Amino acid sequence: MKKLQVAVIGCGTIANSAHIPAYLKSEAEIRYFCDIIPERADAAVEKYGCGKAVYDYHEILDDPELDAVSVCTPNNVHKDISIDFLKHGKHVLCEKPAARNLEDTIEMQKAQHESGKVLNIGVVNRFNTGVNKLKNLIDKGFFGEIYHVYASFRSARSIPGLGGMFTTKEISGGGVLIDWGVHFLDLIMYCVGDPKAKTVSATTYSKLCDNQNMKDYSYTSMWAGPPDYNGTYDVEEFITGHIRTEGPTINLQGAWAQNIANTEMYIDFLGTKAGARLNYGGNFTIFYGEDNALYESTPKYESTNHFENEINAFLSCIQTGEKLPSHIDTNMVTARLMQALYDSAEAEREVVLD
Amino acid sequence: MKKLQVAVIGCGTIANSAHIPAYLKSEAEIRYFCDIIPERADAAVEKYGCGKAVYDYHEILDDPELDAVSVCTPNNVHKDISIDFLKHGKHVLCEKPAARNLEDTIEMQKAQHESGKVLNIGVVNRFNTGVNKLKNLIDKGFFGEIYHVYASFRSARSIPGLGGMFTTKEISGGGVLIDWGVHFLDLIMYCVGDPKAKTVSATTYSKLCDNQNMKDYSYTSMWAGPPDYNGTYDVEEFITGHIRTEGPTINLQGAWAQNIANTEMYIDFLGTKAGARLNYGGNFTIFYGEDNALYESTPKYESTNHFENEINAFLSCIQTGEKLPSHIDTNMVTARLMQALYDSAEAEREVVLD
Amino acid sequence: MKKLQVAVIGCGTIANSAHIPAYLKSEAEIRYFCDIIPERADAAVEKYGCGKAVYDYHEILDDPELDAVSVCTPNNVHKDISIDFLKHGKHVLCEKPAARNLEDTIEMQKAQHESGKVLNIGVVNRFNTGVNKLKNLIDKGFFGEIYHVYASFRSARSIPGLGGMFTTKEISGGGVLIDWGVHFLDLIMYCVGDPKAKTVSATTYSKLCDNQNMKDYSYTSMWAGPPDYNGTYDVEEFITGHIRTEGPTINLQGAWAQNIANTEMYIDFLGTKAGARLNYGGNFTIFYGEDNALYESTPKYESTNHFENEINAFLSCIQTGEKLPSHIDTNMVTARLMQALYDSAEAEREVVLD
Amino acid sequence: MKKLQVAVIGCGTIANSAHIPAYLKSEAEIRYFCDIIPERADAAVEKYGCGKAVYDYHEILDDPELDAVSVCTPNNVHKDISIDFLKHGKHVLCEKPAARNLEDTIEMQKAQHESGKVLNIGVVNRFNTGVNKLKNLIDKGFFGEIYHVYASFRSARSIPGLGGMFTTKEISGGGVLIDWGVHFLDLIMYCVGDPKAKTVSATTYSKLCDNQNMKDYSYTSMWAGPPDYNGTYDVEEFITGHIRTEGPTINLQGAWAQNIANTEMYIDFLGTKAGARLNYGGNFTIFYGEDNALYESTPKYESTNHFENEINAFLSCIQTGEKLPSHIDTNMVTARLMQALYDSAEAEREVVLD
Repeated sequence: MKKLQVAVIGCGTIANSAHIPAYLKSEAEIRYFCDIIPERADAAVEKYGCGKAVYDYHEILDDPELDAVSVCTPNNVHKDISIDFLKHGKHVLCEKPAARNLEDTIEMQKAQHESGKVLNIGVVNRFNTGVNKLKNLIDKGFFGEIYHVYASFRSARSIPGLGGMFTTKEISGGGVLIDWGVHFLDLIMYCVGDPKAKTVSATTYSKLCDNQNMKDYSYTSMWAGPPDYNGTYDVEEFITGHIRTEGPTINLQGAWAQNIANTEMYIDFLGTKAGARLNYGGNFTIFYGEDNALYESTPKYESTNHFENEINAFLSCIQTGEKLPSHIDTNMVTARLMQALYDSAEAEREVVLD
Repeated sequence: MKKLQVAVIGCGTIANSAHIPAYLKSEAEIRYFCDIIPERADAAVEKYGCGKAVYDYHEILDDPELDAVSVCTPNNVHKDISIDFLKHGKHVLCEKPAARNLEDTIEMQKAQHESGKVLNIGVVNRFNTGVNKLKNLIDKGFFGEIYHVYASFRSARSIPGLGGMFTTKEISGGGVLIDWGVHFLDLIMYCVGDPKAKTVSATTYSKLCDNQNMKDYSYTSMWAGPPDYNGTYDVEEFITGHIRTEGPTINLQGAWAQNIANTEMYIDFLGTKAGARLNYGGNFTIFYGEDNALYESTPKYESTNHFENEINAFLSCIQTGEKLPSHIDTNMVTARLMQALYDSAEAEREVVLD
Repeated sequence: MKKLQVAVIGCGTIANSAHIPAYLKSEAEIRYFCDIIPERADAAVEKYGCGKAVYDYHEILDDPELDAVSVCTPNNVHKDISIDFLKHGKHVLCEKPAARNLEDTIEMQKAQHESGKVLNIGVVNRFNTGVNKLKNLIDKGFFGEIYHVYASFRSARSIPGLGGMFTTKEISGGGVLIDWGVHFLDLIMYCVGDPKAKTVSATTYSKLCDNQNMKDYSYTSMWAGPPDYNGTYDVEEFITGHIRTEGPTINLQGAWAQNIANTEMYIDFLGTKAGARLNYGGNFTIFYGEDNALYESTPKYESTNHFENEINAFLSCIQTGEKLPSHIDTNMVTARLMQALYDSAEAEREVVLD
Repeated sequence: MKKLQVAVIGCGTIANSAHIPAYLKSEAEIRYFCDIIPERADAAVEKYGCGKAVYDYHEILDDPELDAVSVCTPNNVHKDISIDFLKHGKHVLCEKPAARNLEDTIEMQKAQHESGKVLNIGVVNRFNTGVNKLKNLIDKGFFGEIYHVYASFRSARSIPGLGGMFTTKEISGGGVLIDWGVHFLDLIMYCVGDPKAKTVSATTYSKLCDNQNMKDYSYTSMWAGPPDYNGTYDVEEFITGHIRTEGPTINLQGAWAQNIANTEMYIDFLGTKAGARLNYGGNFTIFYGEDNALYESTPKYESTNHFENEINAFLSCIQTGEKLPSHIDTNMVTARLMQALYDSAEAEREVVLD
C-alpha cells in the first residue's frame, strides 16, 4: 500500500521535538518541510534526509500526492492554515490550542464539517499512557463520583521567550492559560467525560512582568529563546478561578511565574470513594480509605511516547474513519471554557454558560 | 490594684487547652467555671483549685464582682450568652466564629456598640508571633503588592466528632468553613489589611460522609470524641471557591476530609516583589527573585503562646480601652465573607457584594 | 454488677508485660497472683497494689469467688493447671502453645468439653488490629484465591535463655517452632480460614548451638535471661518445611538463630488477584496488577493493644457465651499441624494427614 | 594451529547475547549460523561479518571441517540436535536445560558416552567469578557444615513471551522451574558438591495466568517478545518445595510472576560457622558470629564474563580432554532433582529417591 504523504507546517520547537521524530518512526513519509523562515525548512531537509523545503504553504495546497499536514506554527495562523488545507482536501493535525479564541475555533470546526476531512487538535495528553490508566480507573468507577478537580500549573519563574510570540497576545491569543492551561483543562475534561461548563469565575494577572518592567524580571533560564526587550509582553502570567460543570467543580491556579518555591504541576481528582494526584507528564498516586485504614499507591507501568501515539492515531484514523478523542468536535468543550475564563477575567464577574 | 475577675463559660476542649491555662498565668482570677454539664464545671474547680462551679450562666450575670467572661461554648449559643453578659456590663471574649451566621453576628456587634463593653472574638492567629512577623513584612512593603492569596486547609480524614456538635448544623452553623476556614480567612484578612470582599463564588460538598453513610467513613483517629452514629452529619466537609476583594483575590480549598495523601495546611501570599508560604500554626518561608537569582529563606524567631497573648491583650484592653484587631467591628469583614461563601454555594452562583 | 475475679498463674515475663496490665485496665479484678517462686508472687502484689500472693495454685481451686485464670507458666504445666481449673469450674485463658504436644492438647480440649467452661489459648494475633484488617480484605475477596503462604520467622542470633526453660524440651516441648512458629502458623490459619493440613514435610536443625557447644554460641543480647551453661539445650533452633492444606500451600523457614544479616519476620500471602506482605507485629503492604500497571500500598490505621483486646474478649465471652477464634477447638488445627511438623522432621519423611 | 570451527545452532536471544559474542572473542571461528527461520541466520551472517547461513542443521552434520556446535534452540529440540551432532563426531555445548525431562537427558548422556565427544550443558553459573569465590570459601570449610540452603527466585511480573515457546510445555518442558530454577538448583549443587537428592516435595501453580486469562495478566514489560494471545500458556509460573539431600536440605520458592513488591533473587547458604547470601548474578555477603560479636562482609573482586569463561573452557576441554563441571554426567544430579520436583507436584505427595 502506498505510504501516506505528510507535510510539516512550521519547523520550530514542537515540530522538531515531537511531530517530525514521530512521523519518521511511523508508516508515513514526510513530503514537505514548510516554514516562512527558509533556513528552518532547509535545515530540516538536511537534518532528516528526506522531504522538500517549502517557504509558503500555499504552494503545496494543490499537490494531489499530499495527504495530510501537521500545523506547528504560532497560534495566530492555526486557523487560516488549517482551514486552507481542509478546503483543499487534506487531513489536518493542528497543534493546541486550536485557535486564539472561541470564534476562530468555531470557524475551524465548520471547515472540518464542510470538508469531511480529519481535523484533530494536538491535545497530546489524551494519548498519554498514565493519563489513560487513570481514565480507565475513573471509567471503571474506582473513584466513585469525581466531584471536584484541582489543577495546579504553577511555576516559579518560567515565562517563555519574554517579548516573543508566546507573550504577544496578537500572536498567541493569551498567556499561561492558552499555553499550559489548555493542556490541563483538556486533560481534566478527557478524564471526567468532557462535561459542559455551567459557571466560570476567573481572574488573570500580569504582575511579575509587563511591558514596563521586562528588564526587572529575574529568571534562571528561559525556554523559547532569550528575552527581546523591544518585544511585547501583554498576556497574563497567572490565572486562577472556580468552575462549575455538569460534572465536577474545577478550581485552578496556573502561573508561568509566581514567587513560590517549586514548580507545582499536578491535578487532584477527588472522588467519593478515592482520589488521585496526577503529576503532569508523569505518574499518579491513588488514595482511599477502607475499613478505617488509609491506602496510598503509585502504580508502575510501561509508558509509550505520547507524541508517537498521537501521530500514529492520526494516521490510522485517516484510513479507518474513526473519530478520535482529539477531534475538533470534542475540543469545543475546552474552547468554550477557555473563552469563558478570559471573558470572566475581563469582566471581573462570573460568566454563566447556557 | 484589684485583680480582674473572670468567668469561663463552657468548660470543654478549648477552655481547658487554651483559655483556662492562659488565665491562670495572667494577672486575672478565675471566679467561676460554668457549664451546663455539672461534672465539667465541678471537675474544673477540682483540677485548677480555684473558682466556683456554676451550671447556669444566668446566676452570675448580676455578680458585681465579675468583670469579664470567656465564651467557650458550642457556636449556637455564642450570640445569646455574649449579648447577655454585655447587657449586664461584662466584657466578653467570645470564641470563633462569632456566631453561626451574619445576622447573629450583626446583633452581637449592635449589643457591643450599645453596651460600650469590650467584645473580642477568639481569632487567635492575630496574636500569633509568626503571623505578626509576616504581617510586618507585608506592611513594610517587602512583598510589593499582594495581588493573590491561596488558602489550602485540606486534611485527608479528620472530621471532628462525627455525629456530634461539630457536624450538626443547628449547633455549629456549618462544617469545615466555619470550623477551620474562619481561622484561615481571618488570618488572611488580618495580613492584607481587612479588605472588603467584592464577589464570591463557592461550592460546598458533603461527599465523603453524610447522615446516610456515617458508618462507612474511614478514619484512623478522631478528635472531639468518638463517632455518634445516632447523631447528625448535615454540614459541608469541603469548600472551594474564588473571591475578589478590594485587595487581592483569594482562592481557597478547605476539607476536613478528602481522598488526598497528607494534610496540606498553608497559605500562599503572592506579591509583585516576593511571595510567602505560611505553614498554618508554624513558620513561613519567603521567595523572591533579584538580578536573575532566586532567593528562598525561612526566618527563625522566638515564639510566644498565642492564646496567652490573646488573653493578656483582652485583659489589658479592658483597662486601657485600646481597640484590638480581634474587636467585633473588624470581625464583620470575615463574617460577611463567610456568609457570602455559604450563600454562593447554596445558589450555585457568584454573589456580588456591594 | 459484681466484677469478675481472676487469678494470674505464673508471674513471669508474659504475665507482667501482657496479662496483668490488660486486666488492670479491664472490668475484672485480680484476686490472686500465683507463682511457685514466692518472691515473684509477692512482688506482683506489691507492684500492682491489689490481689493476694499464692505459691501453690491448688489452694485457690475451690475459691467460689474466683471466676477465671490466666495460665502464664512454662509450657510443661499448661495442661495440668488448665484442666484442674476447668474441673473446678473456672474459665481459663492459657498462654500459647496449648501444650507441648498434640496428645496433651487433646486432653485439654476434652476437659473443656466436659466442663463447659471457657478454654481459650493465647493466640494473641487473632486480636491484632493489622491482622484483622488483612483478614477482612482476604474475606472480602480482595486477594482472589490465596493459593500460597510463605512464613519467614528468621532471626540472626536470638536463642532465648540458653540452657533455660525455653531450650529444655522436657519443659518447653520444642524450640523455635513451638515458641515462634505457633504464632505464625496460627496467624496464617486464622487469616485463611483454618483449613486442615493434608501433607507435611519438615526438617529441624540444632546446628548453631547444642549441649556440646553452648559456650561457643555468639550473641549480642539474650532475652529470657542469661545463659545457664549447666542447663540444657536439646531443642531445634531452625525448622523448614512444605505443607499442603485444603486451602493454600505453606512454605516456612523459622530460626531463632541462623547466620543471616537481619531478622526476617514476615508472612507473604499470595493470591490470584493480589498479594500481601505482613510484617509480624506491624503493618502490611498489598500488591496487585491491573490494566498493565502494578500497585503497592501500605494502609495506615489506628491500632489497639492486642493483649488488651484478647483479655477483654476473654472476659466478655465468659458472660456472653460467644465462642472466640481463640477457642481450644479452633486451636486443634494448628496443634495437629505442629505435631505433624515435628513427626515429619523426626522421620525425615513427609507425613500424610487423613 | 588450526582454529576450531564452530556452528551456532539457533540464532535467537541467547545466541546473540552470549554465545556468538563469546566465540568472536575466542580462539575459534564461527563457520555456520543455523536457524530454521532463514532471516535470523542471514541476519547473523550480515551482522557479524563471518560464517555461512544454514537453515537446516542436517546439512552441516557431515562437514569434516566442523569441530563443535553450540545448541541454542528451544528446549524441545535440544536432545535430537545434540545427539545428531555427537553421533557425527562433533563436540556439543547445549544450552540449559539439557532436555525437557529426565528420560531425554538420559538419552543425551548415553549418546555422549557412546560417542566419546564432549557434551557440556550451559550451566553458566559454574563459570561465574562470584560463584566460584563463594564455592572456594565453602570448600575451605569457612562456613563449617552447610546444612540448609534457601533459594528464592521470585519476580513480581515477568512471564517471558506469554503464549510463546517459554510458556508452551510441548516446547519448553515446563515454566519457571525449567527456565530459572535449573540455574538456581545447578548453582546450589555446584557449590555444595553435587549431593544426591533423597526426598522431594513440591507444589507448582499456574494461578496468575493460564490459557483462560492471558489477556487479564498485568505486566509492565515483557522480555522474549510480546504476548501471543492465540498461543499457549500451560506451564507453571510458581514452584515451591522442600528437598532433603545427602548434604543440606533445600527450600525453594520460584516465581516468574507473583503479587509481591520486588524481585527477590538470591540464595542463602546456611552453615554451622557462617552463612552467605548470594545475589543471583551479582555479589555475595557473609555472616558469622565470634566472641559475642556479629560480622558481616561483602567481598569485592574483579569479575570476568561468565559466558566467555564457559565458551573458552568448552573450547579448551575439546583439546585437553578435561572433564568440566558442566559435563552431562554432573548435570544428571540436577536433572533427576528437577524431574522429582515435577513428579511430586503432579502427585501432590513427596517423592522418595533411592
